[in-house]
Amino acid sequence: MSRIKNLREEALAMHKDNLGKIEVRVKVPVRDTDDLTLAYSPGVAEPCMEINKNPDMLDVYTNHSNFVCVVSNGTAVLGLGDIGPAAAMPVMEGKSLLFKTFGDVDAFPICVNTKDTQKIIEMIELMAPTFGGVNLEDIKAPECFIIEDGLKERGIFKGAIFHDDQHGTAVVTLAGLINALKVVGKKLEDVKVVTSGAGAAGIAIIKLLMAVGLKNVIMCDSKGAIWEGRPEGMNPYKDEIAKRTNPGKVKGGLAEAIKGADVFIGVSAPDTLNEDMIRSMAKDPIVFAQANPIPEIWPLQRAYDAGAKVVSTGRSDCPNQINNVLAFPGIFRGAIDVRATDINDAMKIAAAYALADLVKAEELGPQMIIPSTLNPDVAPMVAAATAKAAMDSGIARVKIDPAVVAENLRKRLAKQVRA
Amino acid sequence: MSRIKNLREEALAMHKDNLGKIEVRVKVPVRDTDDLTLAYSPGVAEPCMEINKNPDMLDVYTNHSNFVCVVSNGTAVLGLGDIGPAAAMPVMEGKSLLFKTFGDVDAFPICVNTKDTQKIIEMIELMAPTFGGVNLEDIKAPECFIIEDGLKERGIFKGAIFHDDQHGTAVVTLAGLINALKVVGKKLEDVKVVTSGAGAAGIAIIKLLMAVGLKNVIMCDSKGAIWEGRPEGMNPYKDEIAKRTNPGKVKGGLAEAIKGADVFIGVSAPDTLNEDMIRSMAKDPIVFAQANPIPEIWPLQRAYDAGAKVVSTGRSDCPNQINNVLAFPGIFRGAIDVRATDINDAMKIAAAYALADLVKAEELGPQMIIPSTLNPDVAPMVAAATAKAAMDSGIARVKIDPAVVAENLRKRLAKQVRA
Repeated sequence: MSRIKNLREEALAMHKDNLGKIEVRVKVPVRDTDDLTLAYSPGVAEPCMEINKNPDMLDVYTNHSNFVCVVSNGTAVLGLGDIGPAAAMPVMEGKSLLFKTFGDVDAFPICVNTKDTQKIIEMIELMAPTFGGVNLEDIKAPECFIIEDGLKERGIFKGAIFHDDQHGTAVVTLAGLINALKVVGKKLEDVKVVTSGAGAAGIAIIKLLMAVGLKNVIMCDSKGAIWEGRPEGMNPYKDEIAKRTNPGKVKGGLAEAIKGADVFIGVSAPDTLNEDMIRSMAKDPIVFAQANPIPEIWPLQRAYDAGAKVVSTGRSDCPNQINNVLAFPGIFRGAIDVRATDINDAMKIAAAYALADLVKAEELGPQMIIPSTLNPDVAPMVAAATAKAAMDSGIARVKIDPAVVAENLRKRLAKQVRA
Repeated sequence: MSRIKNLREEALAMHKDNLGKIEVRVKVPVRDTDDLTLAYSPGVAEPCMEINKNPDMLDVYTNHSNFVCVVSNGTAVLGLGDIGPAAAMPVMEGKSLLFKTFGDVDAFPICVNTKDTQKIIEMIELMAPTFGGVNLEDIKAPECFIIEDGLKERGIFKGAIFHDDQHGTAVVTLAGLINALKVVGKKLEDVKVVTSGAGAAGIAIIKLLMAVGLKNVIMCDSKGAIWEGRPEGMNPYKDEIAKRTNPGKVKGGLAEAIKGADVFIGVSAPDTLNEDMIRSMAKDPIVFAQANPIPEIWPLQRAYDAGAKVVSTGRSDCPNQINNVLAFPGIFRGAIDVRATDINDAMKIAAAYALADLVKAEELGPQMIIPSTLNPDVAPMVAAATAKAAMDSGIARVKIDPAVVAENLRKRLAKQVRA
């Protein structure tokens, strides 16, 4: 049971009383002149010169590899829309809090006062000596695609690059779907998936599902089914996905597209899905209604009453919560530990399977397709799987036993709790 | 006595064992779903919307005001020169460590991979929603002047802007000189000051000393005395200071300029000052030989033997250490506490007098002109004086009793030690 009585008042009081949620802390106490001599002048010149001789020493003598910038311009914050970079700060501090709490990653919020994608790309590149990774957050589509692709293409920023709204959501959705399909006894290769939503999350989810075998997809946006050549409401990213989906060029709204579908994935808005649509789906419908905070169909009982077999949402007060915090802390931990130069599909897929595997066979069921956010095995197992996939795909700069990655994270988190 | 046996080995081991010196820490523990609900979704939407309605709420619900970016491009790091932004990271982490340890300021290193001043200015402006202040560090002259002036002129970054190599050094030098002049019974208005060095620190020191009454100055650089119209080795910043100094247009080297001077201030290089020069100075010479790590005259006994009455250096193993850590943590603490929109001369001068006053009359002497870096009164008293000067000069956005500023800092530091 929740102890929260008034969410608004308690959330405001918590933020105010603590003056936000994160701080910078020293790892080395300064008690006397000797401590100053070693940590600052003249001792600090020694690691400086070592890094000057060999740039790889940056990872040895500084916290560089474990620093991740959480970059947002506040254009698509939670369900609040374009509230600007200042108002996005509580979310970015919150993201840093989750990175630290679950992955022992030192994430730092960088809220940027621009909508110019090239300025954001250049700013991140300029800061490459500081950060071992970058997590893009709450930047609206298509700008988020342009920034992520631009950073990867230019190759100046050498570490992990991840847009959590896309890839974190995709990983956790894939994990949930792997288990949901087990529950209903179907295979990803055989099912038809329909989406409501073709923004950052929707496109990333479908791309990742197709990378593991999904073939039959119709994506829908607010203008209905997306098909190659549709004259309105398109952009280069929808054009690209349209080439790979909806080969029958089904037109019309969601009600048309969803007929006979096995899986509905909503990353859109409340009230986009109704009982008739669910009744038109194939046997044992899987309904992922992830609009936040109000799902595409609400209350959920309506979905069950219409025959849905497995239902997931983004809500912590419902079963099967598709929550990105299940993915990004472990993914970054694994990527950082092996000094991966990217976060590629293989790593995301491995993370999803690791997440899915955390639901034991005896627990698996319509109400249990995804582990709890507070399951202490989540981040260590995701980190280990991500690290292994990075090594297997040849983008790791450091080799380390995946079991050691998991064990190290457990130790780091235990130390954090004691501190 | 120092416990350090091998500085190089121990400094490297300390940095390696701790993987650098700072980390990001959470101020709000996440123990259960309620904690997640308040700190992240959906609770976090409440402070977001409050800031969206009123941008001033950024200081209430986030750590914004206490976040300071420590920005360097690594072009003038310690005495090491242009070692680049990656190799500068240990120093910037060290700076963050000092900010936290002495001022409870959450400073975060941002090492930037460019020498383009306009790019650095624009990057800092973009990050204004994140940071309440910016400390420029180890950026070579004249770029450091261009960046600081550019930021202030454009006025987009609203918080405290400070280049420690200039202003921190100037504040502590002024503090030391106030007390050194007491020791020899002279007044700043009456003395002749000669410098060796006309870079960022040298020019800032002379400007600040002139702001409190110094009139008779000759600055020297590697080409000798600077005079208005000197054809070589000038830049706009030397041109400007040349108009206000050396009115007799004394030419030649330091040996010529220093004749009859009461005070020598070295911010240059070893072996630029010798016994003959000191002997040519006025009665009771004051010698500030601040080149680091080797002073302008070394060993110091040479200066005393030549008649120097008060000698200061940048070294922790000599008396009268002119160390910036005496100034910047308290200056930023005071500026942040009153939400100052700048760090102006009045604040720097107030900080210097507060520092000078911390040497009690009965302690004052040739070997004791400046308090110890570990004196726990330093940062609280500097913070209080800085805050008061900001309020008196009308650039404070918040009013607070200076005694409370000092007391709050003592409490914050005590809490830090307990944590």
